[in-house]
Amino acid sequence: MRVAVLTVSDGCFRGHRQDKSGEAIVEWVGESGYTTVERSVLPDEQNLIVDRLQTWADSGKIDVILTTGGTGFSSRDVTPEATKIVIEKNAPGLADVLRRQGMEKTPFAALSRGLVGTRGCTLIANFPGSPGGVKDSLEALEMLLPHIVDLLQGHTEKHPDSI
Amino acid sequence: MRVAVLTVSDGCFRGHRQDKSGEAIVEWVGESGYTTVERSVLPDEQNLIVDRLQTWADSGKIDVILTTGGTGFSSRDVTPEATKIVIEKNAPGLADVLRRQGMEKTPFAALSRGLVGTRGCTLIANFPGSPGGVKDSLEALEMLLPHIVDLLQGHTEKHPDSI
Amino acid sequence: MRVAVLTVSDGCFRGHRQDKSGEAIVEWVGESGYTTVERSVLPDEQNLIVDRLQTWADSGKIDVILTTGGTGFSSRDVTPEATKIVIEKNAPGLADVLRRQGMEKTPFAALSRGLVGTRGCTLIANFPGSPGGVKDSLEALEMLLPHIVDLLQGHTEKHPDSI
Repeated sequence: MRVAVLTVSDGCFRGHRQDKSGEAIVEWVGESGYTTVERSVLPDEQNLIVDRLQTWADSGKIDVILTTGGTGFSSRDVTPEATKIVIEKNAPGLADVLRRQGMEKTPFAALSRGLVGTRGCTLIANFPGSPGGVKDSLEALEMLLPHIVDLLQGHTEKHPDSI
Repeated sequence: MRVAVLTVSDGCFRGHRQDKSGEAIVEWVGESGYTTVERSVLPDEQNLIVDRLQTWADSGKIDVILTTGGTGFSSRDVTPEATKIVIEKNAPGLADVLRRQGMEKTPFAALSRGLVGTRGCTLIANFPGSPGGVKDSLEALEMLLPHIVDLLQGHTEKHPDSI
Repeated sequence: MRVAVLTVSDGCFRGHRQDKSGEAIVEWVGESGYTTVERSVLPDEQNLIVDRLQTWADSGKIDVILTTGGTGFSSRDVTPEATKIVIEKNAPGLADVLRRQGMEKTPFAALSRGLVGTRGCTLIANFPGSPGGVKDSLEALEMLLPHIVDLLQGHTEKHPDSI
């Protein structure tokens, strides 16, 4: 599984903040036996985010794009708006799963406006910006990801645990 | 209650697969005392699905359209995209109820991208393609359906069990 | 916190029904130590609702707009459609929280099509029309609202209880 990691954060982009959330995702990718094929940090600028997501998804070399940051209520938070432009299909049930996992720790996880969807054969999932939000989101997704990537790649057999 | 059943499946359309899911819905309709007024099988072609849903909803002769299939992550899965074009009003809470009922059996039910919405006085609900997904979706909806149809028909009294 | 309350109801607008739901929200605002800066009743007319929401949100004088009514399946229910036009950012997790709180009392709370989103620095949340639905929605939101308003106002520190 080829994973790209995008951190969206004015603070990280300017070097004012350490990108602990991006690092946490890259660490999980390695521990899971997958490969981080791309990693970027962008400011909270919608057109830059759109451009990066589209380029990565259309490259044919990335199975999953995980973003962290910009999913909240600050005026600069535009990651879901950028993602909505990029995705061709929306998966609201998965966005809900990410939030609900976080809500087992804090009710404020409900504030995440992150989306999950696909562009071509690439899955794009918006995680919150905090390391805790990333941890929760990875827990929520990790068991589902291999099967999602299988389906996107054209392996249409149902998962053994599906009904 | 007049129900139309649409199976969306390349395999069923070509006769390669038996339409067990469509049969399961028709069986439930009969057992519930409702009437199946239309039943079709279409391939995973967006324009054909849009056309059929619009024709049925605008006929004035159908209260509920239940679709099965095409709600997942395969490249051919376009039922939600077609449904989004057709519906005038979206009911995300009901789409969530369908997924959550399925998630009591398998976490992979979260992958369903099915929508629920209305066009005119007709409710349209996307069920997953598997017989198990259909069973779960019917369980989730059956108690709510009569009241939804009442409301769409213009009976505006609240349900006795509403607060 | 400056709150505006909008009741959307043909019946209340014509004086056929008492606006108990609007009153319940105004009462909660006072008890919470906030201020009701605007209060209106409109019929279920989409353009009137859009206009009022936009005017209030763009005034710079309102932090939160709470609407009640018009979120269901009746043909006249257009509040979510109007709200969708007005909001710039969507918060589906919060709309889900409102429904789930209601669903602890009645499964029919899943029928609410209400949205939650933002326009500029103003939060807009659609509550159901019933006093019970309003009560449940306020319970769901009240703990989250101060932090949401803080974020919208530009106070970007995470909530102490966030991870």
